[in-house]
Amino acid sequence: MFNDITFTKERPIYLQIKDYIKEMILKGMLQKDLKLPSTRELSHLLNVSRNTVMLACQYLEDEGFIYTLKGKGAFISNVQIKYQDTRHIDWTQKINQYTQLAEDLDIMKHGVKWEKGMISFTSIAPDETLFDVEDFKRAFLNRISLEGEKLLNYGYARGYLPLIQYLTRYMENKGVDIEGKDVLITNGFTEGLNILLSALTEKGDRILCENPTHNTAIKIMKMHGLEIVGIPVEEDGPDMKQLKDKLAEQDVKLAFLVPSYHNPTGIVMSPEKRMEAFNILQQYEVPIIEDGFNEELRYSGSHVSPIIALSGKGNSVIYTGSFSKILFPGLRIGWIVADKRLIDYLESIKRSRNIHTSSIDQAVLYEYLQAGYFERYLRRVRKIYREKYEFALKCARAHIPCKKILGEGGLHIFVELDEIHARELLEKCYHKGVIFTPGDRFYTDDNGKNAIRLGFSRVQKKDIEKGFAIIGEVIENWRSIKKRE
Amino acid sequence: MFNDITFTKERPIYLQIKDYIKEMILKGMLQKDLKLPSTRELSHLLNVSRNTVMLACQYLEDEGFIYTLKGKGAFISNVQIKYQDTRHIDWTQKINQYTQLAEDLDIMKHGVKWEKGMISFTSIAPDETLFDVEDFKRAFLNRISLEGEKLLNYGYARGYLPLIQYLTRYMENKGVDIEGKDVLITNGFTEGLNILLSALTEKGDRILCENPTHNTAIKIMKMHGLEIVGIPVEEDGPDMKQLKDKLAEQDVKLAFLVPSYHNPTGIVMSPEKRMEAFNILQQYEVPIIEDGFNEELRYSGSHVSPIIALSGKGNSVIYTGSFSKILFPGLRIGWIVADKRLIDYLESIKRSRNIHTSSIDQAVLYEYLQAGYFERYLRRVRKIYREKYEFALKCARAHIPCKKILGEGGLHIFVELDEIHARELLEKCYHKGVIFTPGDRFYTDDNGKNAIRLGFSRVQKKDIEKGFAIIGEVIENWRSIKKRE
Repeated sequence: MFNDITFTKERPIYLQIKDYIKEMILKGMLQKDLKLPSTRELSHLLNVSRNTVMLACQYLEDEGFIYTLKGKGAFISNVQIKYQDTRHIDWTQKINQYTQLAEDLDIMKHGVKWEKGMISFTSIAPDETLFDVEDFKRAFLNRISLEGEKLLNYGYARGYLPLIQYLTRYMENKGVDIEGKDVLITNGFTEGLNILLSALTEKGDRILCENPTHNTAIKIMKMHGLEIVGIPVEEDGPDMKQLKDKLAEQDVKLAFLVPSYHNPTGIVMSPEKRMEAFNILQQYEVPIIEDGFNEELRYSGSHVSPIIALSGKGNSVIYTGSFSKILFPGLRIGWIVADKRLIDYLESIKRSRNIHTSSIDQAVLYEYLQAGYFERYLRRVRKIYREKYEFALKCARAHIPCKKILGEGGLHIFVELDEIHARELLEKCYHKGVIFTPGDRFYTDDNGKNAIRLGFSRVQKKDIEKGFAIIGEVIENWRSIKKRE
Repeated sequence: MFNDITFTKERPIYLQIKDYIKEMILKGMLQKDLKLPSTRELSHLLNVSRNTVMLACQYLEDEGFIYTLKGKGAFISNVQIKYQDTRHIDWTQKINQYTQLAEDLDIMKHGVKWEKGMISFTSIAPDETLFDVEDFKRAFLNRISLEGEKLLNYGYARGYLPLIQYLTRYMENKGVDIEGKDVLITNGFTEGLNILLSALTEKGDRILCENPTHNTAIKIMKMHGLEIVGIPVEEDGPDMKQLKDKLAEQDVKLAFLVPSYHNPTGIVMSPEKRMEAFNILQQYEVPIIEDGFNEELRYSGSHVSPIIALSGKGNSVIYTGSFSKILFPGLRIGWIVADKRLIDYLESIKRSRNIHTSSIDQAVLYEYLQAGYFERYLRRVRKIYREKYEFALKCARAHIPCKKILGEGGLHIFVELDEIHARELLEKCYHKGVIFTPGDRFYTDDNGKNAIRLGFSRVQKKDIEKGFAIIGEVIENWRSIKKRE
């Protein structure tokens, strides 16, 4: 004992000694009332100063592992540890259907796994090398100096007030009439949608959305037991005739729309269609959840108002916002803008789920936005992403034989292939070191078998070209084999 | 126009000009194709440099609000804003039962409200003036320098790996056999319990817990539609006979236990009862959710093992941990330790709810723990809180006539009054500027009418004495009136 201890640099030595002795006690190797070697002896044995040993002993006594008798030394306390042999629970039998569904729909567990050296087009997360870490640091230091103690204690379920106020102005600046509306801060879009569906739907309700749509949204809808009504997407947004027909056919509880740089197609819904969709849905009294996804990544053209702006003083549109596709997704901050009374209800659900979103993260994000760092960052990365987008588009056109390439911007393109199945293509490309997301994952029905989503935000230009060329080659090979057959 | 703009110091001037012009456009005050005043004119009108105006115009063009024609100047883009008159949705009719329950059980909305000058014993949050903000800052700067970019991008649903590893060792140091077990990071205890109940229960299932127990836990159980089976609490933990009887009577799905500094009673379950409760529940094959609440705030006595440590290699105990009652609750970080297979399921639910907990918060907390700041902080505040606890106990004994005072530590005491109803007492004290939490809030049945919880963590000593004296006076007054009646 005491001779097998090795110290690391990352943690104070006295705490490492404390942990070591605690472990011995908990393992039953130092029994109750046993006398510890004197601090002098321990200091010699461990080759550390006597002060270090004394500090370790103070902490051990604090935590109730040893007691000292004046003039006699330190002794092991009566620490009750009785290992029980216990029956083994088979947790696969204990979980409910909801949990099974969560695992079945968890693509992180079932998708192809990236391996070192592969070129991956699966991600549409921002490129972290573009982040202004120094600005973030500055924002942190400013806020923590101003109100560090307060920020580290409990905050409010609704969110950090200055951030709420900033986002309110920010939404006004998108043309939203915020009278009668309010903001709730959430842990990203994902929590926002979860809270909304928990508040407004029951199992078996129908929800309408674009087909294809955001795969995480499909997962969340399915986990809420909703029946999904998909509306096919045209090049300027959902098919209006189908929208009307579906609404005439059946009762629908809610609509979920992604009007800007729609995931996965990259389509921007035209201003006319935004207005038309809004009017049709209003006629059927179906509230809209508008996902502001990627709205900030507009590369060109004039400002297009979100649907919530078109609704004016109305209260039927619920907007979910997030900067996570461009800025600091690691912070997990999103927001909901909706009718005041509705936000009031949602706040209670938020509180019951996790009390509130990290105050320090909200405060730093606020400072970052307020100081204008965000606009500056956006200006810089928009240029870079736009260039990358144009490059990716050019490479796709040059290398990938296909029916159609969709996407007006954003961090990905969506390709409809001629004949080959996306999953078959993926398998073949995987063996050549290239992976991407098969399109069927974004469909509410069994369509999309011939489509693929190619995310390029974190891929270097030379790898975009190389990866697309490999995909192209694999398709050509497959074709020539097919011809011969 | 342009003469009603006032600038604030907190945001770059060019962005304030951009926001102002955007607002004019969105309000329809600057119509499509209208020419903006030249940058020279604007600089004069706004009394700012021409560079500032030019920068504002660049941002306006970026965002699609103006377009420039070479040699002709800048013009307003075709920004489509059409305010629609819309039918008004009555959201109170759109929400479901779950949401109504969330609001009904939201004590932040229904409790007595603190007003300036009042002495409040309702909070058991830590005293933020004790936080080591400088250490937190240091931990932040270390981590952000090492891996800032990575931390600001998406992380893993399971959690930040170094923190998981630290907490694994931390739990080993509480005597837990971690073989076959794993850790999931959550947004505090509240999210942990929500995920667990979502994974393991169905509406109508029975859950067993101490009576009284943590009010947030009761709220979450009710929101999951569970039937709560309360076990009365004695001075060393739950009544074992009742535990056996209830289990013999009815099927129970899960047990929820708070063995250390139990909220609201402050009772520490004895090692013997921990073992006995574990054995009884195991016999009925009922898994235990152990809330490690306040375990770190041990003021005296030897180390008492959590139940999960007693279960050894068994996998029937699920431990939920959090430092939020002592350290940085604003960060919203907690963890679950349980069987590996179960954690795997829970991870998928976590991912579906909010992808992951803030990486930067996890990383800073890791650094704070690893550097030994936590132990140093704990050592310091334990002494302060202990002194406060002893002072509060002394004051309560001196001033508050009652049947019993419970609580062996922690940040609150629990008082059983003689006759007066806690809600009646609260109303009277409220008028004298003192508030606290009525005990019935913690009960699973209609007991606790005569009990009050007095949290003192954020109350200064002189106010503890003053507040308790007022409570005592109100009781004495009430008594003398009763006698006369």
